[in-house]
Order: sequence, then C-alpha cells, then structure tokens
Amino acid sequence: MRFLRVGPFGAERPALLAADDETRAYDLSGLTGDIDGAFLERLLDEGTERIGTLLAQGALPVLDLAGQRIGAPVARPPKVVCIGLNYRDHAAEAGAEIPAEPVIFMKATNTVVGPDDEVLVPRGSGKTDYEVELAIVIGRTARYLASPADADAVIAGYAVSNDVSEREFQLERGGTWDKGKSCETFNPLGPWLVTADEVGDVQRLGLRLTVNGEPRQDGSTAGMIFDVRHVVWYVSQFLVLEPGDIINTGTPAGVAMGRADKPYLQPGDVMELEIDGLGRQRQVLGKA
Amino acid sequence: MRFLRVGPFGAERPALLAADDETRAYDLSGLTGDIDGAFLERLLDEGTERIGTLLAQGALPVLDLAGQRIGAPVARPPKVVCIGLNYRDHAAEAGAEIPAEPVIFMKATNTVVGPDDEVLVPRGSGKTDYEVELAIVIGRTARYLASPADADAVIAGYAVSNDVSEREFQLERGGTWDKGKSCETFNPLGPWLVTADEVGDVQRLGLRLTVNGEPRQDGSTAGMIFDVRHVVWYVSQFLVLEPGDIINTGTPAGVAMGRADKPYLQPGDVMELEIDGLGRQRQVLGKA
Repeated sequence: MRFLRVGPFGAERPALLAADDETRAYDLSGLTGDIDGAFLERLLDEGTERIGTLLAQGALPVLDLAGQRIGAPVARPPKVVCIGLNYRDHAAEAGAEIPAEPVIFMKATNTVVGPDDEVLVPRGSGKTDYEVELAIVIGRTARYLASPADADAVIAGYAVSNDVSEREFQLERGGTWDKGKSCETFNPLGPWLVTADEVGDVQRLGLRLTVNGEPRQDGSTAGMIFDVRHVVWYVSQFLVLEPGDIINTGTPAGVAMGRADKPYLQPGDVMELEIDGLGRQRQVLGKA
Repeated sequence: MRFLRVGPFGAERPALLAADDETRAYDLSGLTGDIDGAFLERLLDEGTERIGTLLAQGALPVLDLAGQRIGAPVARPPKVVCIGLNYRDHAAEAGAEIPAEPVIFMKATNTVVGPDDEVLVPRGSGKTDYEVELAIVIGRTARYLASPADADAVIAGYAVSNDVSEREFQLERGGTWDKGKSCETFNPLGPWLVTADEVGDVQRLGLRLTVNGEPRQDGSTAGMIFDVRHVVWYVSQFLVLEPGDIINTGTPAGVAMGRADKPYLQPGDVMELEIDGLGRQRQVLGKA
C-alpha cells in the first residue's frame, strides 16, 4: 500500500493512494489521526488486511488530490538518522575513503517538508546541494537487533528523500556535518510511504535527480556499500530506533560538490527526484 | 519559578516546585497537559503571573514528592542540539584547538531521561564518559536571530544536563560525533526547569560532577568560549529552534577522556552532578 498525507502544512489528513490511479486517494481520518509512529506500528502488527477490507467495501471516503498539497508521508518523525558516504561513487567524488562501517549523522526533524514544497537556500549560503536518497521508515522499536535479517521486522516502508546539504556549513565551519544538514526545509520527503511488501527488491531501485531538467544523479540502490538491512541493524547498536523514525541511506554520485563546475543550487532552480516505484518530487528553490 | 515533571517514565505530571521547600510541589495538570513546548511558549507570552496568582489563592493541589520519580523537566524535546568544546580547559584536555565558532552536533531526543534515572553503559562500550552541562530550554521559535541580545526573548529557562558520551563510538568508529552521543539513556536532564528570571547571571554558575564521590569536574559557566546568548543566536543561523528544544552548552574540563588514568564509567558507578541554583542529579550506571 501507499500512504500519504494531504493538505496544508501542519494540518495534513492521512490517506491511502488508489492502487490504480495516482490522482485519487482515500481518506483514512476515520481510522487514524495521522500517519505517524503509532499508526505504522499498528500496521506492522495487524497487517494491511483491515484497510484492504474497508477499501473493498467502499467504506473509505474518496479524497480528490487535484490541486491539493501533498505533505511528508510521516508526521513529524522522532528522529532523522542519515548514513553518509554509502555509495562508492559518491565517496569517490567527495574525495573520501570508502567507510569501514556506516557513517552516522542526524538532521533536525523540523527539516522534513512535503515532496513539492519550496526549499530555501539558507542566508549566507553559497554551496547548497542536493542528494536523492532512499529513506527507510521505521515501524517498530529497534534496539540492539541481533542481525541484519532482523531489520525486516521493523521496517514499515520506504520513501523518496532529498537530503539537502549546505557544504560550506557542513565541511568548512568547524565541527560535525549536522551544521550543514539541518537548515529549514532541508528534507523533502515523499510523496508516499510505500509499504515494504510493495517495493520488491529494495536493493535494485533506480534513483535519479535533475536540476532545471539537467540530469545530475542517476544511480541504483544496488550501489550501496551497506545495504538497508545492514544499516538498520547497525544503527540499532548505537541508538534506539522508534516507530516513525526516518533513515536516509546515502546518495549516489552526481552532487554539485562532486562536479568540476560545482553547480550549487540557486533561488529559482528546480529539483526533480524520483526512485523506481516510490514516486517523484519537485522542489523550487527560494531564499530564506 | 521551577517546573518539574513527576511520575513514571512516559506518564509524568506537570508540576511547580514550592519556592521554599524542595520536597513539595504543586500539580499543574489542571493548567497544562505537560511541561512541553506549547506550555513554555505560553509562559513566555503570558508571564508567570497567572500561576503565581493561583498559587497564592491556594488553587493548585499539593503534590508530595516523597518516593516519587522525577522525570526530565521538558516532555520529549523536538531537538537536542549540543555545543562541543565550549570550555577552553575541556578543549585543551581533548587535544582540540579552541573553536573559531561554535561546534554543533545533535543527540537523539529519546536519550532524554530523568535526573536520577539509570544510565546504561552501551553494549560493546569501553569508553562511556560523563559531561556536566548547562542546558538552555527554548521557549519560542528562533530563526535567524539578528543578534545575541535577541536570545533572551526565546529562552524559557535552564536545567542541569549530563551529555553522556561513548568516546570510542564518538571518535574512533568513523563519521560524526553523533554515533557516540545518542545511546539509550544518554541525556539525564533536570531535576527542574528554572525560569531565566530566577537564575541570575547565567554566566556565573558553578557546575560540578563526581563519580563515586570523587570530584571529577568543577567549573563555572564563566569559562564558556561562546556564551549562552551567542550560542542561541549562532544556532538559529543554521536551523530553526522550536519551543521545547534543548541546547547543551558544553562541558568544562575533567571528563574521563581528558584524564591520565582514563577512568571511564563502569556498571555500578554513581554520577552526581549539580549546577548552582539548578539542582542536583544522581545516576547509577547499569548495563544495556
């Protein structure tokens, strides 16, 4: 199933996307207050049968998506954990060694916005950059998972994520990467949360990003150094993952920092991102 | 005023500490669901007069603290932002240069526990360390503050914080510091949130930490490289601070990593922390 949140920022309604029509959705407000950690945990515990039955019975009100804003598909995640340098080609373009174990950093959770919301170039920024990433959405508490195979039981689904980054703040202003990762609007997420059962092989998804129509990133999750299961298992050894948490799993090559001409983002630029089966994002750059 | 949260983890009641007796409190459940961002914002907007009047009228039910657990004084902060290497003597013992501008990193917000809760040595840890810190509690949204002087308007108050850290995870396992800062139970906070008006000069507070009764840290907030106002102003240039956010402002010298004998924490050890006017914490170390 594909879940989404529809409506103005902060007042989104939970919804289910129609299986056969991406312009139509069903309102889940009668079932849950929001698509949040509690909903995702229940979904993993109970499965999707109940929602499927209500849908088949015509018991879910139709929600017309025309002209409606799509929000992030998870309401205010408790955490946004990120894996750095998780594709060989991106590590190479960043001039970094292949990590011996996953690199972890975090984004402030109020960076999460809808897939088509405006992204703001921060004040004083000259190096705002893009990063298309597969986001894992956690559905159950995960604490010291015994093995990567145990990750399947705690993953609710996946979404497209743009780990927007300011490279000067991240790398040249002292301290850790977090400084360049947490600026306002720096994590468009969605449009949908696609449940794990619908994604197929999560390590064979193409992911692409263009700026003003020009291809910049074109990779595959097959290029990850540490795969999804390994990442979830690994992170759970260092912190307690909770339902609703997001893990951004790293970006393939092609970011502005890694290109000879350093084409950093400017106000007015348009980013378009997609991952096979997970939908598309489109953001226009503005100024903070 | 001094606010606190009383009761079992996840079911704390909001309370006001009696001005003259630290064993007595008043139940604020009739006024607010919790001590959270919304409450703190209202407190900054409306001032403390209304609560003061209710107290004077005897309209607040007394809450006996005997035998009760004290929780963190702020319910699940949206963010825990930390300033690294913010005392000269700690930067020196860490073998680091004096930062030219504040070092920012983050802790997962589910590390926040009560001031006397058990702290768990993570699995596989050999270098669990302590850090007594002054925590700033944010009460209003802060986005690109124009100057450090503007910080006063967004600070709700202060609390004692223990920025527990695993040094191997932080420094020897690749990537940013976050990996060693976000382990379960790694941020005891409280006992109280003391409103800014009651703290006096926040840059003249002694802060001390002992392990098993042996003095380890004994500093003063006068030793900060970047003072409280500067820190809040600075952080607001990189991310949007929200009501309920915590900023840990760094630790003075004396951490285990900085000592010749490297006395890292072991299960059974007892940490005791205090900051002038902000109360005391006591944590027994356990095993994750």
